[in-house]
Amino acid sequence: MRTLGALVFPEFETLDYFGPIEMLGGYGKETEIITVAKGPDPVPSCHGQRIVIDRTIAEKDDYDLLLIPGGDSALKLADDPEMVDWLRRASANAERVMAVCTGTVLLGMTGILDGRKATTNKIDFNQTVHLAPGVEWIKEARWVEDGKFFTSSGVSAGMDMALAVMADLFGIEMAERLALGSEYEWHQDASRDPFAKLAGLV
Amino acid sequence: MRTLGALVFPEFETLDYFGPIEMLGGYGKETEIITVAKGPDPVPSCHGQRIVIDRTIAEKDDYDLLLIPGGDSALKLADDPEMVDWLRRASANAERVMAVCTGTVLLGMTGILDGRKATTNKIDFNQTVHLAPGVEWIKEARWVEDGKFFTSSGVSAGMDMALAVMADLFGIEMAERLALGSEYEWHQDASRDPFAKLAGLV
Repeated sequence: MRTLGALVFPEFETLDYFGPIEMLGGYGKETEIITVAKGPDPVPSCHGQRIVIDRTIAEKDDYDLLLIPGGDSALKLADDPEMVDWLRRASANAERVMAVCTGTVLLGMTGILDGRKATTNKIDFNQTVHLAPGVEWIKEARWVEDGKFFTSSGVSAGMDMALAVMADLFGIEMAERLALGSEYEWHQDASRDPFAKLAGLV
Repeated sequence: MRTLGALVFPEFETLDYFGPIEMLGGYGKETEIITVAKGPDPVPSCHGQRIVIDRTIAEKDDYDLLLIPGGDSALKLADDPEMVDWLRRASANAERVMAVCTGTVLLGMTGILDGRKATTNKIDFNQTVHLAPGVEWIKEARWVEDGKFFTSSGVSAGMDMALAVMADLFGIEMAERLALGSEYEWHQDASRDPFAKLAGLV
């Protein structure tokens, strides 16, 4: 069983986190999902649901898989040296690192993605990617895989990326069964991105 | 601002709840989302994340909107007279009642949906709908609207239904902007249901 460290912070984007969680949970035996935060108190999503914390960043930095959601508040974490240090250590330790939406920009701001291809949400693309100039930003992609790093476009794109990670780890049949089980029409083509066009990026 | 009473119970299906929450939150001023449970303690999703409770069922039964998620554990709630009584009162009081996946079967088992059209997930359709024989079950539908009741197919279908409710309450432009904001390709046609065919129902 692989451990998944899934970071939350105040006002994280709700579906950035719980969409991938639905897929990464597998059939219940593939992953142990551990909710991680800076402090021990429950953390509210941007929609107000408070989530109980399993581990603080001070307690553990070695997870097999890592999930970093986004949200309007995500970029503020780059101002916190302890959080940046944890993101660097936990990313170095993990077998697969996933980031959704502005979570990707946060990861980019720590230098972890320097020289790597990555994507983020398309609506705020031009307002955010300059904050991480070392990243090779991809304008048109539902998600991007570069080595062990998987980064997705906005919010719901995290589910498509998470299924790609499950396919990568456990095979395509399992990912397709997970999509079927949640009656989700998985967008399997990582390069298909209607929102890049809608946002005028391509 | 409308109040949304969003029920949780042990091992509720994660995306049944948080998918609709992402859409029903609107821009933050349309709805006040209140997490409701039988008792006051945090409640774990089927993936293990524990959610802090805002109100117990004993404290309040009048919400403008109601959301009932599903999950393998949902049908057990029909054995709890206090829960059934709350579901009946809260449904009677609400302006719109939403149920996802097996949450619809639970609602049907209380008699609330007798004589109404409704749907539920397609993979377990034939194993569950007989539990609520008073409902006019629709085999092929992403979601079904009958009066103030909106019921959806499995898991991810709750997001499409929730956007339909937002369109119903606040107009189609708002629902489309919410879908765009979460880079979600909203399935706007309630009758389109590839999973009914995959499950051999049609």
